[in-house]
Formats: sequence, structure tokens, C-alpha cells
Amino acid sequence: MNIILIFSEDFADADSIVRLKGRRMQHIKDVHKAREGDCLEVGLAGGKTGKGMITAIKKDFIEIKTDFTSEPPEPLPVNLLLALPRPKVLSRVIQAAVTIGIKKIWLINAFRVEKSYWQSPRLEKQNLTDRQTEGLEQAKDTLFPEIHIKKLFRPFVEDELPEIIKGTEPIVAHPGTATPVSRFAGKPVTIAIGPEGGFIPYEVEKLIECGFTPVTTGQRILRVETVIPYIIGSLCL
Amino acid sequence: MNIILIFSEDFADADSIVRLKGRRMQHIKDVHKAREGDCLEVGLAGGKTGKGMITAIKKDFIEIKTDFTSEPPEPLPVNLLLALPRPKVLSRVIQAAVTIGIKKIWLINAFRVEKSYWQSPRLEKQNLTDRQTEGLEQAKDTLFPEIHIKKLFRPFVEDELPEIIKGTEPIVAHPGTATPVSRFAGKPVTIAIGPEGGFIPYEVEKLIECGFTPVTTGQRILRVETVIPYIIGSLCL
Repeated sequence: MNIILIFSEDFADADSIVRLKGRRMQHIKDVHKAREGDCLEVGLAGGKTGKGMITAIKKDFIEIKTDFTSEPPEPLPVNLLLALPRPKVLSRVIQAAVTIGIKKIWLINAFRVEKSYWQSPRLEKQNLTDRQTEGLEQAKDTLFPEIHIKKLFRPFVEDELPEIIKGTEPIVAHPGTATPVSRFAGKPVTIAIGPEGGFIPYEVEKLIECGFTPVTTGQRILRVETVIPYIIGSLCL
Repeated sequence: MNIILIFSEDFADADSIVRLKGRRMQHIKDVHKAREGDCLEVGLAGGKTGKGMITAIKKDFIEIKTDFTSEPPEPLPVNLLLALPRPKVLSRVIQAAVTIGIKKIWLINAFRVEKSYWQSPRLEKQNLTDRQTEGLEQAKDTLFPEIHIKKLFRPFVEDELPEIIKGTEPIVAHPGTATPVSRFAGKPVTIAIGPEGGFIPYEVEKLIECGFTPVTTGQRILRVETVIPYIIGSLCL
């Protein structure tokens, strides 16, 4: 937790005083080992970042006087289409993608996505929000991304994807192609990442029809949690 | 398991027939759902990769006729110095670093490394070997990295590090500096990555004295499992 995220319901008055309980209170007490008068980095969810001075530490809550003065880090100009990964991996990947600054995520179906993954409680809104919160706290960011869930590959690619990729270079990570990701360095991109075992040829063809360029991430087959930061690094964004 | 790793003790004859039991046998049966006559990608630990034809599937073992013909992927020209992370993270990071192609890893101490981490069973040789194996299996690679454990920061930096960094650009990921990682794109590097909370100023100074350049990975503070592939991507290696 490199920043304490503050939500509108945390305000104890109309102005700057917030009261925190639960997880954030515990973190401030146990990890920051903070005392009254200490200053912490705070961020208003969806808004600016700034400083918070602890005005009271009680058994049940902590009171902080906040002052939000700075813009949060710039969002990355990246759309991420992610074939739904295994539930355990999903949580880590959402957190990592949010930390790195991705603000638009589509969890999509693909032939090699196991059907049972769609039943996972990790896909529930509250869990996704918690993972996003952790990602933002890590990155000192305040802007929650959009996460869209699309259970049908073909209608999504045919009907929605053309609109999504507008103004971006659409690329799909696909082993065995020669175009390096770095070809698209510095540009807004839409990145499609397949499931374990990859997109099947039909799916890659549909993406190519839609305008996607297959790109390679090298000779090695990287896991989804590794390939996302690798691609973002290669794009020098 | 994108490749089945074969070790010298697996050979049933002096030539090309191997017998697999345990984890690899189970994987071939359950995940590959392979039958006699099927071909799998195989790699000789420390050697070449190639094809293996399944000649027998029994209850207790699988027999494969192997043929090793191709070179494994090129190692990355990267030395990684990693302040020992939390045990759970360590396992994931070793696996990810190996998958991405890093062949020389030093797990080092730093002021903000919790002392208890050094007691973790995850640091034991067998566990490290298992995580490396998984990383190689993912990457279709055969070359096990060296992993060195250095529990004393200062003697390591003063006595051993000057030799390690020879022929590389030594860089340390450090928030608040302006030099981007991409300045060193395409060059052999030694990358130092601090613990949660970062290296303390004394440690950064010691690294700078030794020749390291502090580099930034952007405004956001990335977790160790995210920052490694991000840096490797930025270096376009």
C-alpha cells in the first residue's frame, strides 16, 4: 500500500477529514506503524493524490486530514483483451495490469478457455474491485479501470472490437510470427493475449480480419502475468 | 509444460530411450492426453531440444524415444541481483525470471529484507530447482541458471560485484531518477532490484560507487514480479 485510497463515503465532514476502519486502518497501524501527526500519501479514488495528516488514532478508526493537490500518474494508452485465465492467475493479472497503468480491460472467451473458469467467484465484481484497489495502492494511482466481461468470442470480435481498436494499433501476441512488439513502440495499442495454449487459428484469423497484427515476444513462451509487463516495457510507454 | 525436460538419469538405455515416472508421466497422461505414437517436444537438461515419440504408456511409466536436434533459446545477457523477496513471491519470481531467459541470479540481502525470509524452506536447493524446472518447461528451454545466495550486502557489493558486472551495464531500479531503462537497450546488463520499500540510500550509494546507474521504470511503483519482465521488455533483448 504505497498510497491510501480514500472514497467519498470515508469523509467525516464535507471537507477534508476522513475516518478509516478495517483494512486500511490496520495497515496504517501495523505496517506504517504511524502515530498522530504523521503524514501519509493519500489519493482520492478517481481524483487527485496528496498528503494526509493523521489527526487521531483510536481503537476503531483513524482520522486523517487530507489535502489532494497532484494529478495521478498518466493512464497508459493501452486496451487489454485477455482470454480469461485460470482464476488464481486472473487475480494476479488484474492486479499487475492495474499497477502498470492499464485502464481498459476486456476479459474474453476463447476456445482454450476452460468453461469452469467463468463460474469462478474471482470474477465477481467485489473481487475484481479489490484486486484493482490493490493494484492502484501499489502504483500510487487513483483511477479505477473499466473491466468488461465478454463470454462470446465471435460477436465480441465482429460487433464490438472494431469500435474498441479505433485510434490504436491492434496487436495479438502470437508465437511463430516475426514482427517484434517494439515495432509499435510509443503508440496507443490494443493488445490481445490468448489463453494457455494460445488462440486457435480461427481466432487469430478473426483478429487479423479485424485489423490485428500478430507480434512475437521472442522465442520463449511467456505466462500471461509475465507477458503483459514485457509487452508494456517493449512499447516504451 | 511446453517441453518435457529429460535428465541423464531418465535414460533406459545408453542411447535415446527414456522412461518417465511421477510428475512428467502424469502431465503427459492428463494434460497432453497423449497416446503411444504421439510426438512431444522434449529437451535435454543443459543441452539440445527436439522431438520425443511415445513408444509405451504403462501404469507406472511412459517410454519415449528421443531425438535432440535443435539449440535451446539464447540466454539473455542479463545478470539479476534480487533483494530476497517474500517467500511466496520468491517462488513466482524465480520461475518468471527463468522463463524470460535470465541465467545468472544473485539473491542478496538488503536493509529492508525481513530476516525471517532467509529461513524459508523456499530457499532450499530442491525448491529452487523445481521452480527453475517449471520456468524452463514454460519457455521450452533447457539451460538451468546459476542461483547464488548472498546474505551479507556489503562484502558482496565490495568484493564480488565488481567482477560480476564486468562487460555489462550495471543498473539499479530506483524511483525518483530520470534515466529510463531504455537508455541501455540492446546491451548486456546487470540489474539490481531492491526489496519492498526499496534499497535504503546507503545501499543505493554503495551500488553507485560500484558503477551502477539508477534507472526509473516510470511514475508507478511496480512489484518485483512485474518489474523484471517490464525491464527486460524495455531493453529489447
